[in-house]
Amino acid sequence: MEGMPSIAVVGATGAVGRECLSILEARRFPHRSIRLLASARSAGARVRFAGEERAVEELGPRSFEGIDLAFFAAGAGVAREFVPRATAAGSIVIDKSSAFRADPWAVLAIPEVNRAALRGVARGSVVAVPNCSTIILLVAIEPLRRFGVERVVVSTYQAASGAGAQAMQELEDQTRDVLAGRPATPRVFAEPCAFNVFSHDSAIDPATGLNAEEAKFTSETRRLWGESGEGGGGGVRINATCVRVPVMRGHSESVCLTLGRAVREVEVRAALTAGESIEVVDERGGNRFPTPLRASGGDQVLVGRIRADVTQGVEPGGACRGWNLFVSGDQLRLGAALTAVKIAEELVGVESKQSTNRT
Amino acid sequence: MEGMPSIAVVGATGAVGRECLSILEARRFPHRSIRLLASARSAGARVRFAGEERAVEELGPRSFEGIDLAFFAAGAGVAREFVPRATAAGSIVIDKSSAFRADPWAVLAIPEVNRAALRGVARGSVVAVPNCSTIILLVAIEPLRRFGVERVVVSTYQAASGAGAQAMQELEDQTRDVLAGRPATPRVFAEPCAFNVFSHDSAIDPATGLNAEEAKFTSETRRLWGESGEGGGGGVRINATCVRVPVMRGHSESVCLTLGRAVREVEVRAALTAGESIEVVDERGGNRFPTPLRASGGDQVLVGRIRADVTQGVEPGGACRGWNLFVSGDQLRLGAALTAVKIAEELVGVESKQSTNRT
Repeated sequence: MEGMPSIAVVGATGAVGRECLSILEARRFPHRSIRLLASARSAGARVRFAGEERAVEELGPRSFEGIDLAFFAAGAGVAREFVPRATAAGSIVIDKSSAFRADPWAVLAIPEVNRAALRGVARGSVVAVPNCSTIILLVAIEPLRRFGVERVVVSTYQAASGAGAQAMQELEDQTRDVLAGRPATPRVFAEPCAFNVFSHDSAIDPATGLNAEEAKFTSETRRLWGESGEGGGGGVRINATCVRVPVMRGHSESVCLTLGRAVREVEVRAALTAGESIEVVDERGGNRFPTPLRASGGDQVLVGRIRADVTQGVEPGGACRGWNLFVSGDQLRLGAALTAVKIAEELVGVESKQSTNRT
Repeated sequence: MEGMPSIAVVGATGAVGRECLSILEARRFPHRSIRLLASARSAGARVRFAGEERAVEELGPRSFEGIDLAFFAAGAGVAREFVPRATAAGSIVIDKSSAFRADPWAVLAIPEVNRAALRGVARGSVVAVPNCSTIILLVAIEPLRRFGVERVVVSTYQAASGAGAQAMQELEDQTRDVLAGRPATPRVFAEPCAFNVFSHDSAIDPATGLNAEEAKFTSETRRLWGESGEGGGGGVRINATCVRVPVMRGHSESVCLTLGRAVREVEVRAALTAGESIEVVDERGGNRFPTPLRASGGDQVLVGRIRADVTQGVEPGGACRGWNLFVSGDQLRLGAALTAVKIAEELVGVESKQSTNRT
């Protein structure tokens, strides 16, 4: 892509879309023009960007004329309908939805994990952003891949934001209702979300018992890591349990790893500390570890509770193949909009990135 | 114990103490008299029991004269000071605290798990109730012990109630503050608890990185199962990660088991369905599984998300050694007061138990 791109943001009024605009602005993403798009319901709304109120246009078949780079921050249905319009118009699409993640002609990428996949992406291509939970896990464990990552047992603590702005509103409304002694009324989620924890709301495969969120961990990770995993051979094995918690926008994950070789704690810590987009938060004395609140608004995945899983055996000298981590990341940022913008920066060759991290 | 016992409840104004009184009343626990005891701070308070307002007396050195059975629903400090007074007075103590769980002269028991240990408990003895998280896990997996349980990877979703009534109040107060735009002020917990998730607040062993709650899973389970676990041989291996969530009184646990032999799903389901104090809640189609709200106020541990962990290998025919469960239980009831009362029922030989389950 030569020169500054003209960009579009689809779903500009949603939770991820607004975060995307905020990050584009904060990182001073180079662009010639910006077009804000949303469904008819939100068209006409005004959204602040770069100090100006801008009108949101209705998404339509001709929305992508002249657009070099289109961020899709909408659901899979909107993506399936309009991404082909955008690519036909010559745009490169960065899609946050699950619509094209498994398609071989689309690129699935996380800059920290498989940056090389973003080289030479041509006009009319689609880059799919992985699922938020997958991104947060894979950015956290990327530095440990040098030791081999053979198996992962992960249980998640997922925020309402993963189900969109309406789910965040539902968590707030229901919590107010419960505190006022009124019944909680589920709308977005089937289960009450205030002061409750429930199995992830994605559909369950009746044969395996896995929900879609859990299945994505394995399929997306194998693709991102360039593993076929076919025939049961090769390929990382991930056993995931995905759970929603009454948190606004930070996902956390309890991770138990089996590495390919036994390593000592000092090696694990050194690797994580040097890792890209990772902040180690691990103070045993003060009981200070990653939390979703601490991760909210930040650019890093927080990694802590770094400790050996001795149930997987310990070698003399303390080296171990089993390692536990607890990680938290901002679902709307690292899990979605920030990763989309970082992909765009790779595509347009932005060299000096503006950090938007609070710290 | 002959005839109806005179009973005492220490910590009668606390979260577990109040639940204990409610359960004693609902199950019509046979007793000749009841004495309500609390610290000087709460002495003089009035508590309803069996339709009457009763005065709470200050706990003192002579509180246990004439008491056959003393329920301790207080912290370990109070237990260390006053349990010896009670046993010296000839009471049998049922202690919910962690003070004596590791002492060889005390009995550690969960009726559903090691009922035989309660036979022949004499006056002046202490029966320690295990930690709430351990109870909820072990009641849930007891029916699977016939297949051998070799290893457990468990991540918890623990309610505020485990830290007492003040912690529950803190969750409510902080949530109100956050919704009103005021800062959350931690008092009981070091981390904000409203709309947040954080590593369990117990002390961390600097050598292992485990917090006390995580270590209890292994030590208590091995004792309850009659395993020495010494020298690294024998004994179940439990890798636990304990986490607080903004839930009032239901603990949940994501459990990944390694069984001693491969079994089919139908065998796992049949065993769990027939298990004592277990309700299987596992509707894949409707996405209906255990939640802490669904478990609250009930007597059963809810078990669901029953599915093979294929990352541990699958035999032809589908038998598997790896199994996942998601369980929820009422922390104040099954995790504490109800288990204490069921222990008392075993000791006094109550035959026909009144169910206090809502359902």
